[in-house]
Amino acid sequence: MTQYIPEPTLGRLPWYLAYVSMLRASDVDYVSSTAIARELNVDPSQTAKDLSFLKIKGRTRVGYSVSELEQKLTQFLGFRRQHLAVMIGCGSLGRALIADSGLQRFGLRIVAGFDTDPALAGREVDGVGIYPMSSLEEMRPRLGAEIAVIAVPVDKAQNAADHAVAAGIRALWNFTPFRIRTREDIIVQNTSIYSHLAVMYNRLASVTPSPCKQ
Amino acid sequence: MTQYIPEPTLGRLPWYLAYVSMLRASDVDYVSSTAIARELNVDPSQTAKDLSFLKIKGRTRVGYSVSELEQKLTQFLGFRRQHLAVMIGCGSLGRALIADSGLQRFGLRIVAGFDTDPALAGREVDGVGIYPMSSLEEMRPRLGAEIAVIAVPVDKAQNAADHAVAAGIRALWNFTPFRIRTREDIIVQNTSIYSHLAVMYNRLASVTPSPCKQ
Repeated sequence: MTQYIPEPTLGRLPWYLAYVSMLRASDVDYVSSTAIARELNVDPSQTAKDLSFLKIKGRTRVGYSVSELEQKLTQFLGFRRQHLAVMIGCGSLGRALIADSGLQRFGLRIVAGFDTDPALAGREVDGVGIYPMSSLEEMRPRLGAEIAVIAVPVDKAQNAADHAVAAGIRALWNFTPFRIRTREDIIVQNTSIYSHLAVMYNRLASVTPSPCKQ
Repeated sequence: MTQYIPEPTLGRLPWYLAYVSMLRASDVDYVSSTAIARELNVDPSQTAKDLSFLKIKGRTRVGYSVSELEQKLTQFLGFRRQHLAVMIGCGSLGRALIADSGLQRFGLRIVAGFDTDPALAGREVDGVGIYPMSSLEEMRPRLGAEIAVIAVPVDKAQNAADHAVAAGIRALWNFTPFRIRTREDIIVQNTSIYSHLAVMYNRLASVTPSPCKQ
């Protein structure tokens, strides 16, 4: 049984992993939590606390073994295990995510796509077949997928989620800005990339441009 | 001069927009902030405060005009204005983002891609040309792009960011899990989609599966 880790910690662990992987590639052998914290602009006591979840022992004055830390983080984050998923909504974003090999590198394997558009059913994206939405319930157990990636238009998000849950999906990775309501035991992770644009646009408009090169 | 809005508020405004657009499509004319809050699982006083930034007046007992709220939110979030961007790193994720028409719908127009891989330079993705990284500094002012989307491998993130800033870029949309360090006046927005996988995997592993349909 995996330990339940606070979400902010889980959000920071991949930063640490990215950083120690870089150190390993540069042949650095040891690193202290203070050095990691400094490099990543995190409070040092927070980093020490985050890393304590890994149950890894550092050496006094030397710090953590970089390769051991990298290995523990990778294992802990589950990026090496394969997690099967279906893509619900195979429009522009859905197809882009299917085609992104990064997801696979981080342990997510999309095994099938589903779409209500009959024109898409029967097509393939990067070797992943697209099926009619109506066949999700029947196909899901055979596919073994526990995760559904939701990349439908925003007004179809709740419906897609309900459909996925009815088909036995346990976790929803929601790429729409819609707040999905579902059973308490269903895991929902919201990744509305477009929301981040709003922050960026506002900051761009409210900051006085610095003199920049012509 | 645009008002500086707290990031959590800016993160929620697109949820409200998604919801009111749905209401408008269903021919609903008025909605209260309480109803929005309830539907989106947000504290009602928070929603009222968020919407107060829009300087929109609701009517007692009736609430806000749905179409006016939608229009104000869209305008406020800047999704209708065109923001020019360059893609730095045109591997799997970079090309997927270029091909995602959703970004364009939310006001981000990627006008060129840059990559250090000579095999990619000269290619096109969805009509967007890919150029050698070395020509970014010379091309950027002519392109008029103020935003750089960073989709390089994690160990190239800092370098790509430095390069972009030297070329006159004012905002970095960082898709890597690396914490970029840059000048104070540069806007950095981190969207590490893979970090969200870590949260989902941990929750999946720590939750006892509910009995699900076979």
